[in-house]
Amino acid sequence: MADRGGAPAARTVLQQCIRARLQVKPAEGQSEAEYVQMDRGMVIYICFFKGATDDLLPKMVSTLLNLRLCESSSGKMVSVLELPGDLLIVPQATLGGKAKGRGMQYHNNIGKEDGLRLYASFVALCEKEVSAAGREVKHGTYGNRQVLMLDTNGPYTHLMEF
Amino acid sequence: MADRGGAPAARTVLQQCIRARLQVKPAEGQSEAEYVQMDRGMVIYICFFKGATDDLLPKMVSTLLNLRLCESSSGKMVSVLELPGDLLIVPQATLGGKAKGRGMQYHNNIGKEDGLRLYASFVALCEKEVSAAGREVKHGTYGNRQVLMLDTNGPYTHLMEF
Repeated sequence: MADRGGAPAARTVLQQCIRARLQVKPAEGQSEAEYVQMDRGMVIYICFFKGATDDLLPKMVSTLLNLRLCESSSGKMVSVLELPGDLLIVPQATLGGKAKGRGMQYHNNIGKEDGLRLYASFVALCEKEVSAAGREVKHGTYGNRQVLMLDTNGPYTHLMEF
Repeated sequence: MADRGGAPAARTVLQQCIRARLQVKPAEGQSEAEYVQMDRGMVIYICFFKGATDDLLPKMVSTLLNLRLCESSSGKMVSVLELPGDLLIVPQATLGGKAKGRGMQYHNNIGKEDGLRLYASFVALCEKEVSAAGREVKHGTYGNRQVLMLDTNGPYTHLMEF
């Protein structure tokens, strides 16, 4: 991983849900919009910064899937793998924003090509772990508008940087 | 404001929505759960850290309400005051969490009494600004479970620390 002087290489925001639906293809001409959806599980909003590389990913995935961020039906905090719950991964470049005056700048965000590659690898690694727990990974399409519907019993919003 | 050695005194996560509903009183005995709801606007998830004081709030409110974080119907980025949109403020102590092993710790979070006072002041300051723009502030009850339903046309999730 490139030395980023203590600045994070990736930022994630995590929310718990009891139902979520995400558009993966907008309506176009005669074709209707397409969605993925899940019931109980965790939403990961993710953004990579300049300098992020592949060797970051295994630790990120292991951390996010094993941290006790989810509430079980008995009220105990467990990981999404322990729940077990599904995973919805939402690419979210806005998470890399910094305020400048009244506007937001995204100069530290990774370039589109590298970001797409890291995002695809991140999704693939998550799929491997989550499917081993008998659950599924759903995810948004990189670089597109993330039309999201979320229903929670308490989002338990967390921030994790890597 | 107390010197916190560069660590933030408050953390906020911001999401845009076209509709949101938040429980403000759980069902109890024969009484049904109570909710607040809004249409187009911005959700502010907020957490205060130890050392946060009142003098932080005016700048926080001014920044959050005037930053161009919302998409207007013409696709231009504008502030929630310019939109104009409603505001939903959600207390979210989990945002102050730090991973330790597989668990989360919240040792840096402000104490409950101070947190409640700052939260109430933050809400009041937002109400003043937002009502001047002809819109409304809805907010969750501090220290309770935030049962949230969110419908977005793209959440445009941002992180802002103060």
